[in-house]
Amino acid sequence: MEVVILVYDGLTPLDAIGPFDILGKLPKARVRVVGLDSGLVHSRGGALGLRASASLEEIASADVLVVPGGAGADNLAHDPALARGLRRLSASARAVLGVSTGALLLGGAGLLKGREATTHWRALDLLAGFGATVVPRRIVTSGPFITTNGAAAGMDAALALAQTLAGPEVAEAIQLLVGYDPEPPLEAGDLFKAPEARAHLARTGLERP
Amino acid sequence: MEVVILVYDGLTPLDAIGPFDILGKLPKARVRVVGLDSGLVHSRGGALGLRASASLEEIASADVLVVPGGAGADNLAHDPALARGLRRLSASARAVLGVSTGALLLGGAGLLKGREATTHWRALDLLAGFGATVVPRRIVTSGPFITTNGAAAGMDAALALAQTLAGPEVAEAIQLLVGYDPEPPLEAGDLFKAPEARAHLARTGLERP
Repeated sequence: MEVVILVYDGLTPLDAIGPFDILGKLPKARVRVVGLDSGLVHSRGGALGLRASASLEEIASADVLVVPGGAGADNLAHDPALARGLRRLSASARAVLGVSTGALLLGGAGLLKGREATTHWRALDLLAGFGATVVPRRIVTSGPFITTNGAAAGMDAALALAQTLAGPEVAEAIQLLVGYDPEPPLEAGDLFKAPEARAHLARTGLERP
Repeated sequence: MEVVILVYDGLTPLDAIGPFDILGKLPKARVRVVGLDSGLVHSRGGALGLRASASLEEIASADVLVVPGGAGADNLAHDPALARGLRRLSASARAVLGVSTGALLLGGAGLLKGREATTHWRALDLLAGFGATVVPRRIVTSGPFITTNGAAAGMDAALALAQTLAGPEVAEAIQLLVGYDPEPPLEAGDLFKAPEARAHLARTGLERP
């Protein structure tokens, strides 16, 4: 079971690491963290460095491909080398998980054309621009492509995928080992739950240039 | 606002990255990822490399200190240099968040002696061995020390801490931006919810030597 997780400059680390810690516990899983090139990539602002142990080109195939979102996704969606790599690996993958704005990278590669998909609330229009039929759900599945509206839904989708690939007992054991038993103290995790002013604050007061 | 996140070989990445993506969005936060030494550390098995941009010694002070758990925590809890660093930074921190078995590192530094605390279900006895009063709750606060029973509770604690430090509006905007709206498809995230056989499977079938 080859699990390939893409990383790139400007990624949202949680989008990659939630699925990493869940799918990486699948029996016989081999997880590879890959970039456009091998070497370090950094989260927006540079505070976190993650190492890609291989380049996308070096990866022959993936059973599961995880594509995280991030501030860097808007631009990277137009990178031809990335698009080629995503198309090549998606062709034979059992599942391709686009977390949050990771869906934009799949969209940019032409992989979501005519398919139902979702993404982070900041990027719904961009996703539609790639020819996807945007569906306002937390998790949307179309063929091998699973897209999510955020990082937490990426963990939920990874756990559901673990269940599909290895059965409910293994998936439950993974959930227990990860301690994935969330009870957020606030209830503003989705655009349809949060006061409208929070979206404004999120857009203007928290995102860093 | 100085947010310092410890990383070390054998850490559980999600324990560090959940709080990273939440606390890193606090207004005026500066997040530093630090190790015993600067440079790369790896998750158990080596699949993920994370870069510590500084050594613990180089850090003068922290407003918030995050100590993730991991397979490496049991041994590292007895490292005198780490214990010194944790004691020094904890002395002036507003909050010290020990996620999952990260509590063992705080325990090993003598910081939880006589305090209520919790940790991952695999490590409750070890935590008691450091003189902590183990409380079977998801999140336990004692003075500046916040300990959690797993990675998801670490995210919940980070969000609650964001609320304490910056108010509910900012915390809600962070939650919205992160898309932290979890709905796990299974309900085995806590020892008291999972069938007993899952704990056995988690212990024997999924953990890698």
